[in-house]
Amino acid sequence: MAQKLTKRADDYSKWYNELVDLADLAEHSGVKGCMVIKPYGFAVWEKMRDVLDRMFKETGHSNAYFPIFVPKSLFEAEEQNAEGFAKECAVVTHYRLKNDPNEKGKLMVDPEAKLEEELVVRPTSEAVIWNTYKNWIQSYRDLPILINQWANVVRWEMRTRLFLRTTEFLWQEGHTAHASKEEALEETAKMLDVYAEFAEKYMAMPVIKGIKTESERFAGAVETYCIEAMMQDGKALQAGTSHFLGQNFAEAFDVKFADANGKLEHVWATSWGVSTRLIGALIMTHSDDEGLVLPPLLAPIQVAIIPIYKSEEELDRIRVVANQVSEELRSMGISVKFDDDDKRRPGWKFAEYEVKGVPVRLAMGPRDLAENKVEVARRDTKEKFTRDLDGLVVYVQELLEEIQANLHQRALNYRADRLQKVNDYETFKQRLESEGGFFAVHWDGTAETEARIKQETQATIRCIPFEREEEPGQCMVTGKPSAGRVIMAKAY
Amino acid sequence: MAQKLTKRADDYSKWYNELVDLADLAEHSGVKGCMVIKPYGFAVWEKMRDVLDRMFKETGHSNAYFPIFVPKSLFEAEEQNAEGFAKECAVVTHYRLKNDPNEKGKLMVDPEAKLEEELVVRPTSEAVIWNTYKNWIQSYRDLPILINQWANVVRWEMRTRLFLRTTEFLWQEGHTAHASKEEALEETAKMLDVYAEFAEKYMAMPVIKGIKTESERFAGAVETYCIEAMMQDGKALQAGTSHFLGQNFAEAFDVKFADANGKLEHVWATSWGVSTRLIGALIMTHSDDEGLVLPPLLAPIQVAIIPIYKSEEELDRIRVVANQVSEELRSMGISVKFDDDDKRRPGWKFAEYEVKGVPVRLAMGPRDLAENKVEVARRDTKEKFTRDLDGLVVYVQELLEEIQANLHQRALNYRADRLQKVNDYETFKQRLESEGGFFAVHWDGTAETEARIKQETQATIRCIPFEREEEPGQCMVTGKPSAGRVIMAKAY
Repeated sequence: MAQKLTKRADDYSKWYNELVDLADLAEHSGVKGCMVIKPYGFAVWEKMRDVLDRMFKETGHSNAYFPIFVPKSLFEAEEQNAEGFAKECAVVTHYRLKNDPNEKGKLMVDPEAKLEEELVVRPTSEAVIWNTYKNWIQSYRDLPILINQWANVVRWEMRTRLFLRTTEFLWQEGHTAHASKEEALEETAKMLDVYAEFAEKYMAMPVIKGIKTESERFAGAVETYCIEAMMQDGKALQAGTSHFLGQNFAEAFDVKFADANGKLEHVWATSWGVSTRLIGALIMTHSDDEGLVLPPLLAPIQVAIIPIYKSEEELDRIRVVANQVSEELRSMGISVKFDDDDKRRPGWKFAEYEVKGVPVRLAMGPRDLAENKVEVARRDTKEKFTRDLDGLVVYVQELLEEIQANLHQRALNYRADRLQKVNDYETFKQRLESEGGFFAVHWDGTAETEARIKQETQATIRCIPFEREEEPGQCMVTGKPSAGRVIMAKAY
Repeated sequence: MAQKLTKRADDYSKWYNELVDLADLAEHSGVKGCMVIKPYGFAVWEKMRDVLDRMFKETGHSNAYFPIFVPKSLFEAEEQNAEGFAKECAVVTHYRLKNDPNEKGKLMVDPEAKLEEELVVRPTSEAVIWNTYKNWIQSYRDLPILINQWANVVRWEMRTRLFLRTTEFLWQEGHTAHASKEEALEETAKMLDVYAEFAEKYMAMPVIKGIKTESERFAGAVETYCIEAMMQDGKALQAGTSHFLGQNFAEAFDVKFADANGKLEHVWATSWGVSTRLIGALIMTHSDDEGLVLPPLLAPIQVAIIPIYKSEEELDRIRVVANQVSEELRSMGISVKFDDDDKRRPGWKFAEYEVKGVPVRLAMGPRDLAENKVEVARRDTKEKFTRDLDGLVVYVQELLEEIQANLHQRALNYRADRLQKVNDYETFKQRLESEGGFFAVHWDGTAETEARIKQETQATIRCIPFEREEEPGQCMVTGKPSAGRVIMAKAY
């Protein structure tokens, strides 16, 4: 870590790209649009995945696995779905390569191995899953089905950015089947709550829960619920969605159940997902001009201990203390790295753990230790303290909690400063350009007005918030009546 | 669970297929050759994955994620690899579907969206990973790289069987890079030991560790180490492989490092993997004519508690005891399901947990409880006992350990009975047909003899065991000299 990071104020987008590289999170692969998630980036994803997986299981869901390939005809079954996703996708047309007879050492597609029906690499799994559920559901006794899948998906993207938009990404997709509309709606809301709780409590990232307008809705859904977060450049990032699918997929795949009276009805459905995009959101919520800042609850390394020594003897003495502190911290469930790598100097290590966002750094040198003291640095505020070794581990534990809370509060304050009510279109356009952020505005409820705003300003309706005042007003563009404000912003 | 399972002795293959279905582990999907891993089957895989993942991390490895697509040219870089894997694979040739102008509601491949270079859905990731490592490695300071990936892979299979051979399957693949041959060989052996420990200790499945002959070796490897297990029909199943890749991939992708003296050398490599095939191995090692038998350490549900009651009042009284027992067992890390589902009768539940291989079943009825007693049934031996409630949880804990040990011992005995030394080819052929099992035989070390035996008997050399006596002998086919016995068997 010798390179210097671009400042956020100078070029936010460049800062992001450099940070992902310097913090060793991910990189572009040799395969167009696909990323390599490097061990440190993957460790963050593992942390997120493990927490979410536990939350899904606590709400009654099981994991399963469905095929990566979706036969073309399954997409055709659900029209909206085909329109929405099947088009920009990876299409498997052949099942064999053969030696190129004209060029030694080269391979070519074997024209004799053409598939009768093309297979699409899943962009999402509703089609393949509902084609399966069809055989699992006969009566109300078979319901609900509450299944989640952790998987890779592919959507052909022309312009990609690491974590935020890549051709292949990792995600989880929940797919549930219910006997009633009410139960499916309840599930849709419950999973949005799970996402919101995860975002606020673990990612320390404030989100607004709401409902998408028709034009921003998932293809095939009756309603799409979402959580929207504000990044440090004032743009919005859709961090998770939960879809009430009504009976659309049950109708497309003819999935009916017999109720307690033997009456046949189509099954009700939901689906919900979050992806590796959340890592992008995490970065853009907390990190600073020095590098990554991670909330302790998602940091692969929560505490780094760096020895400062001139001789092997000094290092040995430090090691005794460091090992003891490490052990005590680990017994409290805190992850620690004691970095005694002799090939790197302390200054290099300080910079390394800073750019990697490790929440707490302990520096141990012979002079401090002689006085029974240690230097403690926190990543979020960059403050340093000298602390007694006595009581250190409890102090560190509380400090981690404080950092987690501070990051959340800081992000809340940031958002509060950049969420404004605006009533006229001119002011909106002007401030959107000069200040950015979220705008609570009145909108007449029509797709036409929404499209016009998007075309003229690039801003979209991020959501109609669940928690909004009943506040009759007039659409800022057309002056037509509105029942309450919606959130508008430019978005990732 | 009303259906009856075919007996193993009548038709082992049919028994396997029915068992996978009845125990709700997996099913064929609508996509040719691809399986759906159902929640109960996936829960077994999660157990396996979690243990292996911990073992990988304890041996210094980190997880990462590499792209699912491998550009055709990367396969061409490593000739052996291309010969071995790239041929029977899913080939992505286009990146878009469009509406079929001739048929409303239908989609077709957009001929204008043809890829310049075809992408292969990974059958394994050496090529894409070494193309990445190339940029990560400059000096000995960057080594070793110890990375594992949990992923889906695709190999086009014509004849598939659930878990054992499917077009898409889940696996882990470790890919490591080293500064010396010795270190890479040590890693190859270390990871085989991890697999063997996992097989013996967690799967309760005895394995023979050894080395593959050249014709059975992984394409691109210098040596392939393997663990081989014996199934209940006497056939062998290759349960895991660890490859010493030498400098083959480093040469193919031009990956060199500068040693401490600045001298450039090609990097040394290993790769190693196990897959969802292990679930097939687990089934075929322990299960019986009544259904699945799971070793407690990999059972998603270790203890099922079934209430036997006539009235709600009786159920309420049982529930108090069952909840207390469940809580105590859970606090010991034991997974428990108290099944008070009112839609199913106790007999149905007994059959259900039997076919699903739950190691211990507790039946609680009012008469037993009045005497402070419970009925305990173990799945492995099908024995039943009546036990006092006092001390029950410690008894159950010990019983689970005993079942784990018993399954291992039973499998060891089974294998010992079916591993025989044979010295002449006629006896070999005869007993292979009449008795099956493993044969320790002398072989002259030539691929010709190996091929002849395979052609004439379908048996292959499973491995040259690491632990074998130095026992000079004569090849059972050609009479030429041999330094020790190899293991031959028919294999899955």
